[in-house]
Amino acid sequence: MNSKKRAAEKAVEYIQDGMIVGLGTGSTAYYAIEKIGERARSGLRIKAVASSKRSEELAKQFGVALVPIEEIDSIDITIDGADEVDNNNNLIKGGGGALLREKILASHSKRFVVIIDESKLVGKLGRFPVPVEIVPFASNLTLRHLRALDCEPRIRRDAENVYITDNGNMIADCFFDIIEDPEILSARMNSIPGVVENGLFSHTMVHAVIIGTENDTVKIKK
Amino acid sequence: MNSKKRAAEKAVEYIQDGMIVGLGTGSTAYYAIEKIGERARSGLRIKAVASSKRSEELAKQFGVALVPIEEIDSIDITIDGADEVDNNNNLIKGGGGALLREKILASHSKRFVVIIDESKLVGKLGRFPVPVEIVPFASNLTLRHLRALDCEPRIRRDAENVYITDNGNMIADCFFDIIEDPEILSARMNSIPGVVENGLFSHTMVHAVIIGTENDTVKIKK
Repeated sequence: MNSKKRAAEKAVEYIQDGMIVGLGTGSTAYYAIEKIGERARSGLRIKAVASSKRSEELAKQFGVALVPIEEIDSIDITIDGADEVDNNNNLIKGGGGALLREKILASHSKRFVVIIDESKLVGKLGRFPVPVEIVPFASNLTLRHLRALDCEPRIRRDAENVYITDNGNMIADCFFDIIEDPEILSARMNSIPGVVENGLFSHTMVHAVIIGTENDTVKIKK
Repeated sequence: MNSKKRAAEKAVEYIQDGMIVGLGTGSTAYYAIEKIGERARSGLRIKAVASSKRSEELAKQFGVALVPIEEIDSIDITIDGADEVDNNNNLIKGGGGALLREKILASHSKRFVVIIDESKLVGKLGRFPVPVEIVPFASNLTLRHLRALDCEPRIRRDAENVYITDNGNMIADCFFDIIEDPEILSARMNSIPGVVENGLFSHTMVHAVIIGTENDTVKIKK
């Protein structure tokens, strides 16, 4: 079993009957949705909310019951991957393009459980670019404000076209070097008019990080 | 001449040949666009960017040359109204629903000139609700986060339908009582995942507030 799948399956053990479960997006979250489907077929009764159209499709494919997010008050547990995790459990997320909905789910979850393999662990964030969701209107000007934060922003493309999020916005992948204070940087980004949300997730949101390792075990970082 | 129109016409005096001019939205901005059109017909050569589809239409109607915002690097002057102005020139804007584009324009303007009548002046902000632009996805949950900031948010409606902004989002009008620190509140709102932007404009953006008075004069507050 690969290490992403091992981390995902460990996280799915946290899910109990009757819970509302947030589904992440991406290759590791895929394994979680697959495993939740397996448990649902064995009798687990849960309702899920999806963080992307892709995850919604996967849930349907694996037989996971979905509920519209408009009908819930809170989420018991969200299981999602990350692109980078630092020593303090701060995260960069959104390589898959679903950062806004993922952050909405995480911020309303009693437990937000992050599943990764060891390659995602870093001392400080910044090797991976920070995805920033921006409105299309005046995106050229919004990039100027982002650049003033000492990064090199690039508009994400999908083959020949500009990549458009599920919310109709664009993604600027912002290349920093080392991010000294993710919480201050996140607040600065969100204060730029035209920035909808950014892919820096504070450790204060994170209940646990489950790391699948090469030697078939998992580590849990709280 | 009414006091809104007087303030607008005073502000338009700041515009010089060759400038790029940001056009606000709303009843006071209307008079500014009308006056800019009058000066354009008399030979003033400027290019304008609009903060809303409505202002774009008005510019066309009054013969003001428009340039797509994607083609400019900065704005020389933006003239726009406000719903409330406090003692320190902090503003509440967005009663007209265009707060995001208005804030983008203001934040890229060398001079942001606010035009109001005396009824908009307050000691502290908060009598007028703060409009907050939120993404439609999980708007019910975003309202919970807003409510936790001690306000009563109401989704704006347009007759029977939910009001949708030019950017495809919703507006939550947030009723506070007195807002003690607009900058802290603005940062808190923008840190909520699902909040795109809010209608609190910091005094640091404002070059001048021009107030049209009942007795046919204007006051300028810097």
